[in-house]
Amino acid sequence: MAQKWLTFLSDYGFEDAFLGVCKGVIARTAPEVRVLDVLHLVVPQDVEQGAAVLASALPYLPAPAVHLALVDPFRATPARGVAVRTADGSTFVSPDNGLTSLGWDVCGGAVQARVVDNPELWHPTPARTFRGRDVFSPVAARLADGLPFEQVGTALDVDELERLAQRQPTVEEDHVHGEVAQVDHFGNLTLNLQRAHLEQAGISLGDDVELRCSGKTMVVPFLETYGQVGRGRVAVCEDSFRTVTIAVNQGSAAARLRASRGEPLVISRLVAPGTPGPVVLPPEPNVVAGR
Amino acid sequence: MAQKWLTFLSDYGFEDAFLGVCKGVIARTAPEVRVLDVLHLVVPQDVEQGAAVLASALPYLPAPAVHLALVDPFRATPARGVAVRTADGSTFVSPDNGLTSLGWDVCGGAVQARVVDNPELWHPTPARTFRGRDVFSPVAARLADGLPFEQVGTALDVDELERLAQRQPTVEEDHVHGEVAQVDHFGNLTLNLQRAHLEQAGISLGDDVELRCSGKTMVVPFLETYGQVGRGRVAVCEDSFRTVTIAVNQGSAAARLRASRGEPLVISRLVAPGTPGPVVLPPEPNVVAGR
Amino acid sequence: MAQKWLTFLSDYGFEDAFLGVCKGVIARTAPEVRVLDVLHLVVPQDVEQGAAVLASALPYLPAPAVHLALVDPFRATPARGVAVRTADGSTFVSPDNGLTSLGWDVCGGAVQARVVDNPELWHPTPARTFRGRDVFSPVAARLADGLPFEQVGTALDVDELERLAQRQPTVEEDHVHGEVAQVDHFGNLTLNLQRAHLEQAGISLGDDVELRCSGKTMVVPFLETYGQVGRGRVAVCEDSFRTVTIAVNQGSAAARLRASRGEPLVISRLVAPGTPGPVVLPPEPNVVAGR
Repeated sequence: MAQKWLTFLSDYGFEDAFLGVCKGVIARTAPEVRVLDVLHLVVPQDVEQGAAVLASALPYLPAPAVHLALVDPFRATPARGVAVRTADGSTFVSPDNGLTSLGWDVCGGAVQARVVDNPELWHPTPARTFRGRDVFSPVAARLADGLPFEQVGTALDVDELERLAQRQPTVEEDHVHGEVAQVDHFGNLTLNLQRAHLEQAGISLGDDVELRCSGKTMVVPFLETYGQVGRGRVAVCEDSFRTVTIAVNQGSAAARLRASRGEPLVISRLVAPGTPGPVVLPPEPNVVAGR
Repeated sequence: MAQKWLTFLSDYGFEDAFLGVCKGVIARTAPEVRVLDVLHLVVPQDVEQGAAVLASALPYLPAPAVHLALVDPFRATPARGVAVRTADGSTFVSPDNGLTSLGWDVCGGAVQARVVDNPELWHPTPARTFRGRDVFSPVAARLADGLPFEQVGTALDVDELERLAQRQPTVEEDHVHGEVAQVDHFGNLTLNLQRAHLEQAGISLGDDVELRCSGKTMVVPFLETYGQVGRGRVAVCEDSFRTVTIAVNQGSAAARLRASRGEPLVISRLVAPGTPGPVVLPPEPNVVAGR
Repeated sequence: MAQKWLTFLSDYGFEDAFLGVCKGVIARTAPEVRVLDVLHLVVPQDVEQGAAVLASALPYLPAPAVHLALVDPFRATPARGVAVRTADGSTFVSPDNGLTSLGWDVCGGAVQARVVDNPELWHPTPARTFRGRDVFSPVAARLADGLPFEQVGTALDVDELERLAQRQPTVEEDHVHGEVAQVDHFGNLTLNLQRAHLEQAGISLGDDVELRCSGKTMVVPFLETYGQVGRGRVAVCEDSFRTVTIAVNQGSAAARLRASRGEPLVISRLVAPGTPGPVVLPPEPNVVAGR
């Protein structure tokens, strides 16, 4: 029997029963649906972070599935709820605030959309401050259980959906302006860059580059993995999701560079050949590494 | 096929394998039972918090189900284990310390009780300091798997069960004494009050009230949701579980009022009409909002 | 229908989607497999802690099962992946760094081993820095789903597997040198000692002993449970996993003794009869207790 999957990403955390209560609603609504937790420690209200994590996780999540995503910053008029179907048959349920928009492209692009405005699917008296429990969870559960997409609510043109503008890097002749898009559990800094951006600025794998970040300037190598530098050294490399990352071998790049999400940085090609090698920094005791 | 649900609330946290081991015992004992995590970050040994969270979550959890609740403060003589069946067919398994008592009423009231004293259902050599693993988990799993309630142990009159006295608010002619019952992930303060308590003190929705808490006195509005005040302002409102809450729009009321669980407070009707409106406080950067 | 169990222990934490992505891969690979989380907050890269927790949890986990364990410190040459089958039919999948070696003995001893080197089971382009997602998760999922063990990869003699040397205590005529092996959620200190070690040094249940740890010396009782001393007092006792533990009744031994994992300590028999009783320490407010 095919499993009915519902993946769940939110900023609810684990300190109270919000998450348990949403899962309770899903279990009551559609007992056979299986919930797969993607992440519940999205920074509160950080739609961009949630969107980026969801998009990078999607290639590894069950498919087809219903993807419930709940990061819902307060606005004078709250974002309407939407359900979006993509070309590969995946379904996304979330506020219409761009949270799932980066994910649609990973799944072949949005092809159908509905406003979540059919109250027959909701809690009979939904609370205005907990739509996750009273509106989004029961609707996502019903969709995962086979409810025809059309019954969710009013049809909507996919062009009317809110989309997130990913802050793109700026590529110049010999340098790239980017920023820190994510900091992971190990302190690695994922940038809003692919390897191609560096190559457009004349930077090739194996080159040393100048890295400017948080008021620091250092010369570091651009390598395939941070395992190729000595313990405690900084490297620019590709991470396991194919994006450019700054890492410290067995250390925390976030701590070393005092950088957090959103920190701007510049990676420049070194002008002349024969420039000095990577800065040798003393090793530090905080040991972190591969997964 | 009907799912066999076991919900689980505890103060075990996630830093060690206590929770995993209990789930392992449940899986060994009754492989088809599905576990739904309600909350595992109850403040260690805080039976009152656990009881309040469980009671407020129950309307959203699968039913019928077995509800395993494990918050078990040390006492010279440890609380006996009890299983309680309620009018709606739900079953609760916990120490007899009041932890599930607020939940019984949500489920129609306790109608049968048994002491958990049939050692044939336990680990053959139960550890005195981990009854959760050796006694409560296997008994709850067996019940979820269909074990007749009578086989849990000796019958007990439901009047002999330990019940938690909820600290009730005191309602005076023009003010109410209450306290902070919960602080949620977003810093909202849930009080031990319903809207009716405020109405008995002559306070209606839309009124401004005087709020005294942690040595502070402020005038704030009593509104349907905190979304109705400006960013950074304090409001008294109803939360998504229908209880009175103090919230800061896009901020943390716990941080603003320096209040935590148990903090006493007084909400008073403003004596004369034409009193000043809500105190305008500068907005603060910590953004928190709806779920 | 028999359930297909996969237990999962790691140092991935909950702050990013690494764990969710691995569970996604398992769900894609073998949708009917059920994942049981043992612990995901192993101290980053602490293979010894992960190994000890897994070994102590195993008697309570479903059997037979596939046990996926991912704590993988960086090394110049990363540890190869291995699958190990034990006498009781359990299967372990992990890096060959000793992480599961303490568990094999709990399961009757390792009887077969294979290098995880059949790339047909992996992600087509595995990332060097996330073998958990691209190699270990799909292989463990396939094994849990019934893949013949032989198809994992090249056969390996079990004597070639990396094993962890548990730091053994030193037992002298009247004292034992041990160390803190674990600190639990409640601040209890689990030692690398069994009761037999104390008995070999002439220490019996009920005796007072001299405890030296972190520059402190105190006289405390060796009792069956810490419930037998007054609130706030230190006791040496047996924990629920049958190992010797230092606990403070309704307090944190880790805080009291300022001791963390790896802290050496000496427990000595008191020379003469009629020695003073346990040191009476003032009670402290941090309340922690039985589970």
